[in-house]
Amino acid sequence: MAFVATYSDSQPRRASIQSLVEIVSPGMASVNELILSKAGSNVDLIPEIAKHLISSGGKRLRPMLTLACADMFGYQGDGHVTLAASVEFMHTATLLHDDVVDESDMRRGKLAARKLWGNQASVLVGDYLLGQAFKMMVDVGSLEALRILASASAIIAEGEVLQLGAAKNIATSEEDYLRVIEAKTAALFAAAAEVGPVIAGQKDEMKQAARTYGMELGYAFQLVDDALDYGGSSADLGKDIGDDFREGKITLPVVLAIARCTDGERTFWSRCLEGEEIETGDLDQAIELLRKYDALSDTVERARNYGEKALRALDPLPKGSHNDALADAVAFCISRVS
Amino acid sequence: MAFVATYSDSQPRRASIQSLVEIVSPGMASVNELILSKAGSNVDLIPEIAKHLISSGGKRLRPMLTLACADMFGYQGDGHVTLAASVEFMHTATLLHDDVVDESDMRRGKLAARKLWGNQASVLVGDYLLGQAFKMMVDVGSLEALRILASASAIIAEGEVLQLGAAKNIATSEEDYLRVIEAKTAALFAAAAEVGPVIAGQKDEMKQAARTYGMELGYAFQLVDDALDYGGSSADLGKDIGDDFREGKITLPVVLAIARCTDGERTFWSRCLEGEEIETGDLDQAIELLRKYDALSDTVERARNYGEKALRALDPLPKGSHNDALADAVAFCISRVS
Repeated sequence: MAFVATYSDSQPRRASIQSLVEIVSPGMASVNELILSKAGSNVDLIPEIAKHLISSGGKRLRPMLTLACADMFGYQGDGHVTLAASVEFMHTATLLHDDVVDESDMRRGKLAARKLWGNQASVLVGDYLLGQAFKMMVDVGSLEALRILASASAIIAEGEVLQLGAAKNIATSEEDYLRVIEAKTAALFAAAAEVGPVIAGQKDEMKQAARTYGMELGYAFQLVDDALDYGGSSADLGKDIGDDFREGKITLPVVLAIARCTDGERTFWSRCLEGEEIETGDLDQAIELLRKYDALSDTVERARNYGEKALRALDPLPKGSHNDALADAVAFCISRVS
Repeated sequence: MAFVATYSDSQPRRASIQSLVEIVSPGMASVNELILSKAGSNVDLIPEIAKHLISSGGKRLRPMLTLACADMFGYQGDGHVTLAASVEFMHTATLLHDDVVDESDMRRGKLAARKLWGNQASVLVGDYLLGQAFKMMVDVGSLEALRILASASAIIAEGEVLQLGAAKNIATSEEDYLRVIEAKTAALFAAAAEVGPVIAGQKDEMKQAARTYGMELGYAFQLVDDALDYGGSSADLGKDIGDDFREGKITLPVVLAIARCTDGERTFWSRCLEGEEIETGDLDQAIELLRKYDALSDTVERARNYGEKALRALDPLPKGSHNDALADAVAFCISRVS
């Protein structure tokens, strides 16, 4: 709890996810049950792969947002549980496809599904989970929630295609990169939060506030992830440091360092990220350059700014323990890197 | 027009898709416009790949079913156009992912998208099209149509995973194989037809009849495809003969031949399909074995039986030019292989 996110008018925040975990704990028990039952299939490979991913210890931040953003309005039904499980399925499907696209070997410190069962099964089980996600959303019966989540689904894929183009291009600007993470990360956080007030029958102002909170938190979360890949401990992320570097991914720390570097350093980045010719010592060299140009600390600074915007977005939402827990979650996301 | 599908009470049928094409032609013009507009994106690669597939000359049988099955009830809105475009997007997404999974080089006589833009882009653009499909369905606003199409989406993926398991297993039974094609082909035909009466506000009997028609037609269509892969002219299918064989796919002709073969012949099938050790002359040998055991003609016979069930399913549906065109489409599907 090294870092305490604040903005001028606010209380200091606990940099812990614990208050959010506790407050949505009854709902999350139902979400987890639903996830396990809906990941079932007579086709054995499907539950096998789905359970590998589902049990591999993600924090389930997205479904927690959905529950908290419905519960904070006193929502009494179980539609938020179903929507939360759908959101997690959408996320899991994206992870499966991402690993295939990025040729990743590890996911959350375990072998990636594609290394265990192959790319083919990862593509198809991802498709299955996405289909199940939509079926669950239909069960809830809110066309508005469906519209929000279907849009997020298309936007996420669009962001991934955009990232594919940016992946081997060191001319990627900060603006370009922010477009990528808005689509591939922030859009689902935003949708996950927005469907809370939607299912609770709230007015537009509340939906917009929850959406903005999710969106800004999503930006912060992704930028912290990007910084961690070059400097956090591997235990935190459950994956090795330098994954993004080895996969030729252009992330914000790299974009910032390249914008500030010498011609010789630019040749280094080009060789590693565009040419994918990575030699022993290159990762250390990359980290050194990122530090030299304050690229990691500036990335964290930007994450902190997004975090403050997320906190401000909570203002119009009902005060109380849910609001406080959502604020703590912001501080937690930032604190991972401090 | 070599083959004329009939069953006891019916008129002889034109074995042509022309009457269906003509009767839905105004709607299909709108479907095609919508497809082109919804395949658009600011991310250039998306329309590029989508248009490659969309313009590559599929028959668009599935969206035509949706239009005909709504029009036959005098449906006056434009929801059927949007649903038809969604169905085609779902199908296109499946093709993109299928080619990655099957490692196919060709699709409808053109290089497969994955050979032109890579597996990564094919996976992600497929995801994008699926997201767009769901967004379009939500626009239509029928939760019942959404439920039908979302279920089909999960079932298709389940069928593909099932096929992945069967692909390298010559012990696959006829029953196993029929489960695969019910999921991977017939389910979308069934859903495409069923949403017609759904959007037209018809009662359950009509929905069920349209669904059965689509399902049986889907089986027939797939079995004819399977037979063509070992004996049709490559111009018909727009792909080379023997693709299934080279990809180690177990299809009904092979299942039937293996059930009837000698031990020595079984070793041959195992080497080619399970071991994927295919040598010059093996495809000719396979075709000879299929003919020796009447496996191709028996596959076509089964397709014909499904075709007759499809024709019978049309009975409760309104008589007239749409009903006739749907009957002609059955005869057309079978005639491709005669």
